[in-house]
Amino acid sequence: MNYHFSSRVPKSDVDPVGDILKIAGKPGIISFAGGLPAPELFPVTQIAQATAQVLQEKGRDALQYGSSQGIQELRNVIVDRVKLAGIHTDANHIMVATGSQQTLDLTGKNFLDKGDTVIVERPTYLCAVDVFKSYGAHFAGVNMDDAGMKMAELEQALIDNPSAKLIYTIPNFQNPTGRTMSLARRQKVAELAEKYDVMVLEDNPYGAVRFAGNSLPSIKSFDKSGHVIYMGTFSKILAPGMRLGWIVTETKLLSKYTMMKQSADLHTDNLSQYIVAKYVAMFDINRHIQSICKLYQKRERLMMNAIHKYFPSHVKCSQPEGGMFIWVEIPAIKDTQALFAECIKNNVAFVPGEPFYEDQGDPGNFRLNYSNMCDDQIETGIKRLGAVIKQMINC
Amino acid sequence: MNYHFSSRVPKSDVDPVGDILKIAGKPGIISFAGGLPAPELFPVTQIAQATAQVLQEKGRDALQYGSSQGIQELRNVIVDRVKLAGIHTDANHIMVATGSQQTLDLTGKNFLDKGDTVIVERPTYLCAVDVFKSYGAHFAGVNMDDAGMKMAELEQALIDNPSAKLIYTIPNFQNPTGRTMSLARRQKVAELAEKYDVMVLEDNPYGAVRFAGNSLPSIKSFDKSGHVIYMGTFSKILAPGMRLGWIVTETKLLSKYTMMKQSADLHTDNLSQYIVAKYVAMFDINRHIQSICKLYQKRERLMMNAIHKYFPSHVKCSQPEGGMFIWVEIPAIKDTQALFAECIKNNVAFVPGEPFYEDQGDPGNFRLNYSNMCDDQIETGIKRLGAVIKQMINC
Repeated sequence: MNYHFSSRVPKSDVDPVGDILKIAGKPGIISFAGGLPAPELFPVTQIAQATAQVLQEKGRDALQYGSSQGIQELRNVIVDRVKLAGIHTDANHIMVATGSQQTLDLTGKNFLDKGDTVIVERPTYLCAVDVFKSYGAHFAGVNMDDAGMKMAELEQALIDNPSAKLIYTIPNFQNPTGRTMSLARRQKVAELAEKYDVMVLEDNPYGAVRFAGNSLPSIKSFDKSGHVIYMGTFSKILAPGMRLGWIVTETKLLSKYTMMKQSADLHTDNLSQYIVAKYVAMFDINRHIQSICKLYQKRERLMMNAIHKYFPSHVKCSQPEGGMFIWVEIPAIKDTQALFAECIKNNVAFVPGEPFYEDQGDPGNFRLNYSNMCDDQIETGIKRLGAVIKQMINC
Repeated sequence: MNYHFSSRVPKSDVDPVGDILKIAGKPGIISFAGGLPAPELFPVTQIAQATAQVLQEKGRDALQYGSSQGIQELRNVIVDRVKLAGIHTDANHIMVATGSQQTLDLTGKNFLDKGDTVIVERPTYLCAVDVFKSYGAHFAGVNMDDAGMKMAELEQALIDNPSAKLIYTIPNFQNPTGRTMSLARRQKVAELAEKYDVMVLEDNPYGAVRFAGNSLPSIKSFDKSGHVIYMGTFSKILAPGMRLGWIVTETKLLSKYTMMKQSADLHTDNLSQYIVAKYVAMFDINRHIQSICKLYQKRERLMMNAIHKYFPSHVKCSQPEGGMFIWVEIPAIKDTQALFAECIKNNVAFVPGEPFYEDQGDPGNFRLNYSNMCDDQIETGIKRLGAVIKQMINC
């Protein structure tokens, strides 16, 4: 049967990253390919206690239809969380989303017509590229250095694309690079957004998972004109399985998000919203986050030490101060897919860099994840990877 | 600040139904306007037990990222549930969605380009109209009688709209009319879909909540050519707060839904999926559904008896054999909004018919909900409503 799909449905069923993750998931392979938090830190017992409490006190509310904007109790929790990013707001400026991915989707729905331009970091989060593409977006990529997007390139992109709708950025421990945007550049992004009248979508999934350096205020905290939409999530600080994200923006824009959300799924899972609000009331989430930071720091150190030990000395990698990823750049490797294939033969995996680019990408780059790998496997895996790299460079 | 929204964002922030529900929700008003299940039947204690069990046995899985298609355990449960609609399939043909609303949204995303036609029952579920509109759909309405869509009109609509993408239908206890499509018409819809090569979206949220008459097989059960997409939900048989719906279709099409779902919210809340699968394993959901049917039957009877007692004798209303709604037609009332306003003054509310139409609608029609109203208020409310109707007709 031939389906008459809409023009936004890709002809092909090929899912390159899905295929990579499938191959990387085979038994015996040490995989640094995924992007999952460490499940051994999920506070399962406390969540069970919070759930029992919720169902006892508010069972009917938690199981009934709810508000598209999200429950007041959880929005109050989010008010407190975003203070840590220098954002002082109230629950009326917050909408709960079904994970950050839904915020990306609703942003596409609200702003993007076919042919509209989105300015993205180069490289950037691949599922954001996918979802904006589904609304017909074109992309302008802005190169980064260790302090995030290069501001001269960003301004040039704004000049070259005067009707660009959106700048999408992950300022903290970016996916895939692990890089953090400097304070000065954050201020600059807010200024440029106002000057060129373009919206900024500031995606901050990892900000609270900082294990080195000092916290920086969000771009949103410098936003005087209402051009910055701020988004966050409980996925990396509590549990991704519950799909709870949030948006902070002006009420006039928030009402459009709420309307689009109603169309998309009526509202976010009520039970999970109540559970997380209750968890935060009963337990110390900041202490829990500290335990995440501690473990990820340890794993990042193990990985970085192994990289220094086993990779060729000229290999460049990012120095994350938090989050879950290290980005490796080896320009001498001209075919990252061939490196990947060789690594699979040697029972180690990563995600090749190409899918993270809005264009064909730069060769020789790849992403390593350290959050979801038990300590003793890190050295073994990096040793295998280093051997393959050395072998390929010498070829 | 002026936002540069996409063309799919409505200029106006007016939400007529939202406003109706706000007014209807004021203290002292007996409201038949909502569309909520009876919360007093939510099996709160059993869900608490199932949750405790899930978190003990599979806490890390339930809190971790999961599959876009949904967890196997819940898809197995759905395989059993759709058997009751005459659908014999397996878990590979099922995707879990974030409530039925997401299925509507993803269907729009998969099939609708700007200007495409969707054929709908007249009247139909208003949020379906909204979401299809957000993809630029035009509509062709097909009038109904007590046996559902009129087949001659449906075929004429297919002839008049040769590139129609979708027929959207709710065959059981339709929202808003409470009507059920006859067996012969179900077969006919499947035949017409194949003949005119158009997809059918068969929405069955209420089918299991039948308290009179005999169950009828789904349209999907007559589908030989793969033209019917079947959708269901746990919202009316268990609890809507957890946002769990499902799609049944051919694997080739399901892979597109899964891809679009990944873009939309990665996957449905994992914890809720595990809870419902465990609830079904531990308890007898069919017995629970029987208790829903019994209560709704009682309330429907109370409402129907009160209608016969207090409404003018010529008033026509639907005779639902299940579900949550009665549809009232009083052609003598030329202004349903005026009736609504007068009713509010008399402390009783309903939803005027107009928003349920894809066009301007027919006057004098409105929807009454009986599932969410305690027994003793039903007679009082209908008595008030009857008095206002009599007064307006005599004017």
